[in-house]
Amino acid sequence: MSSFQDQDSRPAPKDLTHHFSRTTKARVPSSIKQFYKYFQIPGIGQLAGGLPNQYYFPFDTLEASVARPDRWKPTPNTPVDPPPAADDADVIARLSLQEKKSNKNAVSSTSSPLNQPQDAIRVPHTSSQKDLLKKIDLATALQYGQAQGYPPLYYFIRQFTQNHLHPNCPYKGGPEVILSAGNTDGWSKVLQTFTNEWSEEKDWVRDRDGVLVEHFTFGNAMTAVTPRGLNIAPVAIDDEGMLAEGPGGLRDVLENWDFKKGRRPRLMYTITMGQNPTSGVLSLQRRRDIYELCCKYDVIIVEDDPYWYLQYPTATAKNTTTTFHPSNQDFNPDVPMFANAEPRPAGWKSSGYDFLDSIVPSSIQIDTEGRVIRLDTFSKTVAPGCRVGWITAQPAVIEKIQYITETSTQQPSGFVQSMLAELLLGPDHSGIESGKPKDGKGGLQDGKGWKADGWVRWIEGLRGNYERRMNKMATIIDNGKYLVKSGRRSSLGDDEEEWSVIEKKQIMSFDWPVGGMFLWLKIVFENHPLYSTFKKSSEMERLARALWLFLTTKPYLVLASPGGIFSPSAEIRERDGWKYFRLCFAAVNDDEVEPISHRLVDGINAFFRIKDRKTIEKLLEEEDASVADRVGTVAGVAQMLGPC
Amino acid sequence: MSSFQDQDSRPAPKDLTHHFSRTTKARVPSSIKQFYKYFQIPGIGQLAGGLPNQYYFPFDTLEASVARPDRWKPTPNTPVDPPPAADDADVIARLSLQEKKSNKNAVSSTSSPLNQPQDAIRVPHTSSQKDLLKKIDLATALQYGQAQGYPPLYYFIRQFTQNHLHPNCPYKGGPEVILSAGNTDGWSKVLQTFTNEWSEEKDWVRDRDGVLVEHFTFGNAMTAVTPRGLNIAPVAIDDEGMLAEGPGGLRDVLENWDFKKGRRPRLMYTITMGQNPTSGVLSLQRRRDIYELCCKYDVIIVEDDPYWYLQYPTATAKNTTTTFHPSNQDFNPDVPMFANAEPRPAGWKSSGYDFLDSIVPSSIQIDTEGRVIRLDTFSKTVAPGCRVGWITAQPAVIEKIQYITETSTQQPSGFVQSMLAELLLGPDHSGIESGKPKDGKGGLQDGKGWKADGWVRWIEGLRGNYERRMNKMATIIDNGKYLVKSGRRSSLGDDEEEWSVIEKKQIMSFDWPVGGMFLWLKIVFENHPLYSTFKKSSEMERLARALWLFLTTKPYLVLASPGGIFSPSAEIRERDGWKYFRLCFAAVNDDEVEPISHRLVDGINAFFRIKDRKTIEKLLEEEDASVADRVGTVAGVAQMLGPC
Repeated sequence: MSSFQDQDSRPAPKDLTHHFSRTTKARVPSSIKQFYKYFQIPGIGQLAGGLPNQYYFPFDTLEASVARPDRWKPTPNTPVDPPPAADDADVIARLSLQEKKSNKNAVSSTSSPLNQPQDAIRVPHTSSQKDLLKKIDLATALQYGQAQGYPPLYYFIRQFTQNHLHPNCPYKGGPEVILSAGNTDGWSKVLQTFTNEWSEEKDWVRDRDGVLVEHFTFGNAMTAVTPRGLNIAPVAIDDEGMLAEGPGGLRDVLENWDFKKGRRPRLMYTITMGQNPTSGVLSLQRRRDIYELCCKYDVIIVEDDPYWYLQYPTATAKNTTTTFHPSNQDFNPDVPMFANAEPRPAGWKSSGYDFLDSIVPSSIQIDTEGRVIRLDTFSKTVAPGCRVGWITAQPAVIEKIQYITETSTQQPSGFVQSMLAELLLGPDHSGIESGKPKDGKGGLQDGKGWKADGWVRWIEGLRGNYERRMNKMATIIDNGKYLVKSGRRSSLGDDEEEWSVIEKKQIMSFDWPVGGMFLWLKIVFENHPLYSTFKKSSEMERLARALWLFLTTKPYLVLASPGGIFSPSAEIRERDGWKYFRLCFAAVNDDEVEPISHRLVDGINAFFRIKDRKTIEKLLEEEDASVADRVGTVAGVAQMLGPC
Repeated sequence: MSSFQDQDSRPAPKDLTHHFSRTTKARVPSSIKQFYKYFQIPGIGQLAGGLPNQYYFPFDTLEASVARPDRWKPTPNTPVDPPPAADDADVIARLSLQEKKSNKNAVSSTSSPLNQPQDAIRVPHTSSQKDLLKKIDLATALQYGQAQGYPPLYYFIRQFTQNHLHPNCPYKGGPEVILSAGNTDGWSKVLQTFTNEWSEEKDWVRDRDGVLVEHFTFGNAMTAVTPRGLNIAPVAIDDEGMLAEGPGGLRDVLENWDFKKGRRPRLMYTITMGQNPTSGVLSLQRRRDIYELCCKYDVIIVEDDPYWYLQYPTATAKNTTTTFHPSNQDFNPDVPMFANAEPRPAGWKSSGYDFLDSIVPSSIQIDTEGRVIRLDTFSKTVAPGCRVGWITAQPAVIEKIQYITETSTQQPSGFVQSMLAELLLGPDHSGIESGKPKDGKGGLQDGKGWKADGWVRWIEGLRGNYERRMNKMATIIDNGKYLVKSGRRSSLGDDEEEWSVIEKKQIMSFDWPVGGMFLWLKIVFENHPLYSTFKKSSEMERLARALWLFLTTKPYLVLASPGGIFSPSAEIRERDGWKYFRLCFAAVNDDEVEPISHRLVDGINAFFRIKDRKTIEKLLEEEDASVADRVGTVAGVAQMLGPC
């Protein structure tokens, strides 16, 4: 568990300062640092700071009821609810009947899933602990703090990152961390660190920076890139993620870069685990291929991986196209394998936890040169409202990000930092007078914090729950991906009917999500009866839009994310994006996953039965008429979608 | 209390889009907004978002013990502890003896000032309230949220800002607000909104943006400006703040701008209430003068005012140089006056609160064109660790800042947003079943929230407490500002001695802080016996450094902030900055203010008795030798200074 730094024979990370933006190069340490040593003089009268007095904070203590780490069952690599056989048409038809009956009850029941054992944690106002790495109280957490993070939380994350997440990091000292206000903030800071703003009107084309991204990617990350005037350079993907080789793959993009567009990109934005929106998990072998190219072309890799712990072996077993499971191989935890069924390399250092060992590793674990920057967040493991995450990279990069932090966010909120610290570390018993828990309570029955053990158990439980939801949704969609024209074949008797398949036409296709929170559904629009009446791709986008609208009407009532918003270029959106919907199985309540999935399948089926172009046009006209005056008037609803 | 928007005859704010940076101009609304209306369809199955499920947040409820709004006594415009007469040399000498005795007890007692009535607030996991402006629960607060802020908190702040802080805002609709992660974040976003990054190597000098600032200002704000390659243009100040007229005043700087340095600045960064570091409060008349110049030269005014509510009438009465108190006028709450003794204009709309009416108004209240942007924060009214504040400006500016927020911080932490909302608004009783407070408890005995009344009472109480501390410190320093060479004049008898003044030499000067948290102390180095041995200003800086170091040694043990770090240019630092120390009377505990102030006075007195240059050089040598290896090695100590 100890750091490797003592007898660390790993080589130092590569100097990346030539990649820093002009602004980043101009950033220097705060002049305040010269005073640090004087703060430690015993009894010193501190008139130098610009702080309010801690006794004037109106919050005396913070308390919370919190889950125990074992609240949710981990999936034991076989799902709780095994999916029915996917190609049984009889089952499909019966499911279709059932779902009509259950539609009445489609609105979620509100019985609380929170009737589970819980514990109380408490952050006291003032702790007598002298060691800042152990001190958790409001007097420090609600005061101005250091940009790297609240010391106890920062230290926990740093240890966890170095020892458990990336024990194989190949460079000297291992990576450093700094807390962020979540991954959107992290990406914003990384962009500032490495790219110069560029203006067509003022600057040379040769100075235009660019960002390599997956062919489909997280829209909000691109929204941060575009106003800076940068190129966005999409790279082809498969069901794992970014392609290293082949047409449109990374080598192709870098080798054949068109310098008339700007500099060859030096920064890559990639979501490698539970890719948003496609759900892919990039294998270790693919990571090595991509890494090699990035070394050759001196590209910095930024991994934005909020879903890293959501890797689904049950789905891996369903998919047959991905590199590492040529056969429909079942995951076997006794064989050293990652969750994507890829063999674990010989000599690979253990994280100390079976669960973490089963996770396909971050590229930091093969980052010999220190060119990987990783964005981690508590948004999907605790809650998005935390606005806390951390950035992992070689120390010289973290240092510059710290300077940016000092003049922007300063630190995550002390409310959440102290709560997370108390949850994870527990109260500091050394500060307790004669057994009275004046210093707070931890997140376990015995008054201790979760520690790394509890944390790993918690996220393993979450993985189990999201995996079960994924399987529920994927099963229903898999069973509904064919449009079945059926008729009564024969009457076996007065009381019995039998259904038979007359025609089977594929209307949807997807890979089972091997990670993350999304199912990336491709609609086979070519099989729509009206497809041939839509000539240009811009018109086809309208057909897709009509389906999207149709799904929001009764009785289907389903809101999907149209693929266009995950298309990093207009060209991709027009050519490919409109064919897809991204479905999030994570957000709705557990008992709603199945009814909503059924309604979705029903809706798509019904849409493919529309034979009159006028029906389509009518949907679109109503939309056009009503959008303008309703957009942007609704307070608070952005919350229902998240940053997407 | 209602908004003015219904029959609002005020003119619209001026179009400021020509001021937007290239990046800001390129920012567009999120494509997500097109979906908002669909979120409202009853029973819709939400598969579009990218959110985790709320039941998988490990926090089930948040609770806190909180102060009542009347915990602290407001100062009734006469201080709790009236300062002794300042020019009584006899008192000075006796104080000097007393302080030596009390030095033994200089370390703060830790008896808690928190033994005051408190109440408990509770944020429940799920509230049944449908109205998002009233709903306060973890299911929404810890989920992704909207960039403008958590709806109930955003709405409270917006109402408070429009109706109580700036009821006289002269433009149509009044100002809009957006929550920030505190004022450092707010300033960072404003800088991004209005300035282009500039590079000497790449860009024309004529494109170089600049920022107008006070001659002495908050160093961290300048640290955000410098790496962008911008000019910093200092403007002369007096004890109020920025000067409009006269040499080095705003008109002088703008009229005689040297275009060889870059564009004439279009952005002003100013701290107008309790200026950091000088403590000035800019009068309404001076605001009008500055505003007129800003209209003429099309300058945007950014007010960074964390100390706005800390305006001290007792100090105003002490100072005689400021425009609005030519005579040593006592503050009289029955005469319509601001805290700086300036008459309130006829027809001035009331804020609804006597306390707020007594505060010198923000320039937003005279902002006919909508060119004022104001940064407000909870850092000094609740706690710095909140990392919550808000930006106030005309709506078109707030809209662009919202786009920046959506791709950087997203929103302040939901932990603190829900806690503040619960504290201020109280629980939503409409969601409570048969009287059981399942939806949480408010910050008052009766289970209600503080509301605007409680909030104003709270900050008025804080003002009282900080005003008392200010008076304690200023009194002691005022009494010690002369070096008194004293001797025994005569012996009146065996048991009695009398002290008499032989020589009185001024060694310090300052204006009583009329606002904020700082006393800006000028050291009269010219009266130091060794002054003539320091020839150049760079050497004089060393003399100041020696005093600073001397104060950190026993028995004085005081840490002050050297004036250099508040000097926005090297020239100002070398010419003026070294003559000053900034003293924060806010951060140390109440019972430490007096002993530390005495130690400071003692230390400065003792330093002025040093007659051997070698003693000075020795101090500096020890410093030089030990700094290098100790700087930056201390974890967590940045917290002790804040952002400065």
